[in-house]
Amino acid sequence: MLKEILENVRKTTPLIHNITNYVTVNDCANVLLASGSSPIMADDIDDVVDITSICGGLHINIGTLNRNTIPAMFLAGKRANELGHPVLLDPVGAGASKLRTDTAYQLLDQVKFSVIRGNISEIKTLALGEGSTRGVDASIDDIVTEENLDKTVAFAKKFAAKTDAIIVITGAIDIVADKSKGYCIRNGHPMMSRITGSGCQLSALITAFLTANKETPLEAVVAAVCAMGICGEKAYARMTALDGNASYRNYLIDAVYNLTGDELESEAKYEIL
Amino acid sequence: MLKEILENVRKTTPLIHNITNYVTVNDCANVLLASGSSPIMADDIDDVVDITSICGGLHINIGTLNRNTIPAMFLAGKRANELGHPVLLDPVGAGASKLRTDTAYQLLDQVKFSVIRGNISEIKTLALGEGSTRGVDASIDDIVTEENLDKTVAFAKKFAAKTDAIIVITGAIDIVADKSKGYCIRNGHPMMSRITGSGCQLSALITAFLTANKETPLEAVVAAVCAMGICGEKAYARMTALDGNASYRNYLIDAVYNLTGDELESEAKYEIL
Amino acid sequence: MLKEILENVRKTTPLIHNITNYVTVNDCANVLLASGSSPIMADDIDDVVDITSICGGLHINIGTLNRNTIPAMFLAGKRANELGHPVLLDPVGAGASKLRTDTAYQLLDQVKFSVIRGNISEIKTLALGEGSTRGVDASIDDIVTEENLDKTVAFAKKFAAKTDAIIVITGAIDIVADKSKGYCIRNGHPMMSRITGSGCQLSALITAFLTANKETPLEAVVAAVCAMGICGEKAYARMTALDGNASYRNYLIDAVYNLTGDELESEAKYEIL
Repeated sequence: MLKEILENVRKTTPLIHNITNYVTVNDCANVLLASGSSPIMADDIDDVVDITSICGGLHINIGTLNRNTIPAMFLAGKRANELGHPVLLDPVGAGASKLRTDTAYQLLDQVKFSVIRGNISEIKTLALGEGSTRGVDASIDDIVTEENLDKTVAFAKKFAAKTDAIIVITGAIDIVADKSKGYCIRNGHPMMSRITGSGCQLSALITAFLTANKETPLEAVVAAVCAMGICGEKAYARMTALDGNASYRNYLIDAVYNLTGDELESEAKYEIL
Repeated sequence: MLKEILENVRKTTPLIHNITNYVTVNDCANVLLASGSSPIMADDIDDVVDITSICGGLHINIGTLNRNTIPAMFLAGKRANELGHPVLLDPVGAGASKLRTDTAYQLLDQVKFSVIRGNISEIKTLALGEGSTRGVDASIDDIVTEENLDKTVAFAKKFAAKTDAIIVITGAIDIVADKSKGYCIRNGHPMMSRITGSGCQLSALITAFLTANKETPLEAVVAAVCAMGICGEKAYARMTALDGNASYRNYLIDAVYNLTGDELESEAKYEIL
Repeated sequence: MLKEILENVRKTTPLIHNITNYVTVNDCANVLLASGSSPIMADDIDDVVDITSICGGLHINIGTLNRNTIPAMFLAGKRANELGHPVLLDPVGAGASKLRTDTAYQLLDQVKFSVIRGNISEIKTLALGEGSTRGVDASIDDIVTEENLDKTVAFAKKFAAKTDAIIVITGAIDIVADKSKGYCIRNGHPMMSRITGSGCQLSALITAFLTANKETPLEAVVAAVCAMGICGEKAYARMTALDGNASYRNYLIDAVYNLTGDELESEAKYEIL
């Protein structure tokens, strides 16, 4: 199943419109290319409707949102909705500033998202108005553990029901849930949090996997999360004594480039909750 | 000849003003440094006239154009024209949105470009109003092949005559033409299309080569295109089993850094058509 | 002493707000992560006050300043001043354009900076109004040499007295000075000038070191400058025949990731002048 999902990405080369932050935008473009997708970046209000229209999916990331790009996010999101394209929201830093929190709320209000992906603090902010985001990282108090796992999956399902979106909460343990089914994913490596943008890259990747697998959206998202986690493991396995986070960043994207459907199928570690 | 052109870049360290997209801007800066040139990026309308004035050449790339940077492109282009500096246009995504297509047309109308570099679909859009750009990639229907090569070179010459610019069409086969002379270049590697920004990097490089070799503009552009292609080959030769597009991106810039005039001279594969 | 300073960064994970250029922003984020700090980027006027408020230090870099980000720099700077946070100014290209020079002057006028870091031409522009910046590089005429070293340290001390900031002048020889004490640092490698952003990375790093070591600001800045220089040496030592500036960029950040307090202590080469 996961194998077929990855192969569909490679066979169909989905074109993905990214409105994303300027910090990790190059990594997002290269990881999409690594996966077999094709990225395009456009964030001007006079450009985004046309660009979304020629693409298959839309990835909105508010990491360095500003007064020019925020209205572009709404325009692109609404256009993607009209066209029935998958749309993903990555609410970077929701909870860390009023602008980020308010923009995320308003986006949720006016655009129908297929997927919302964030760390636990960002998702709590959106769902409960009470996350305690530390900059762009999750607060220690919010971290998903074995103890609160069942409760967190229930929370994700409930927020999925409310938003009619697939909810993805990433961290040491990843959770993917729609309103009725929850997955817990145990791939990945702590080193992924020592580079900027592993979350942004995953958001781009999910959008591509979903665009190429519209009939099986939940499985497509699970496949993307497992793929990124497996690649995080492979990238770490490749590190030598002198390597640090910069080399790891390259190895991570390289691993996506080289990941086969069989590896994804056999190395994915998930359970249904 | 090609050797001397590269050596002129390294001897004179041309200062290049780049108004470019935020996706591949770091790669453009590093490839210019690799070539022996010096990059500066500036895109605010209150900044660009001064910056263009202290530079030797101007590189305009519309990859993530917006309402603030578009007027800056016009101001910088006109100032560069006044000063007689080489100016290159990279019409990223022309044909993919009205804003991109219209901006490219207006730039052609108001600024005299020394070089226009794009994929075949972008150049067809500018010349004929009929390219079928797929996002930022060329459409399959437009691809340059052995069968349509002569016709495409004739097309490039005609567009060069109309614009008084050197036209560069890049793809599996690259074409460089002014109104009377056409080159077909057979260096490069398919892997170059699996990273973001190999085209943007080439545009930056052409601007630098031209700025350092004003007396032989056509040969300078050919040298830059051959150099990038040869480096694409060298970068691929260096790849190991675990490497993917992220490592390839680094190897490509590394290859530009290490390219010698003798290698450029001996490994360039071009013919005059 | 230097060892303890680095260890304080790793123990306290300072959260650093960066308003910086889009050319080297990814490198700034990754070098902060490499050092054990946590980066956040935000540059919209409606976002920066909140973000600065949750951070421990502020890094302002005018490398690609524009009409939207300039007012955000003032707002964030003033807020950081209210909160007593360390604030660093990196006046990229001051002297190269009126907008850059004027913005830097006005920032100095309205914001109290803890550190000002630039090349000698940028610092001369700020202090004397007479630097001869070549784009983003120092002018040959300004370069710090053994002959003018004493004079340059005296100049740095005087400018430190005037601004009540620690002045950092980087180049082949680095100078760090407050009004009463000057350090000359002889770590580093010429290869650092063949990548874009080694200066920007250092500015980010200084901000983090200072934020984690508020009681010993001058020593914190010296430690960051030594650390970057040592990492520049280590990165060069790792280069192979095919490596160029792209690999060097990665090795530099990797070296920061792997730098130990003991190495910093034993490999730092500085003298007090």
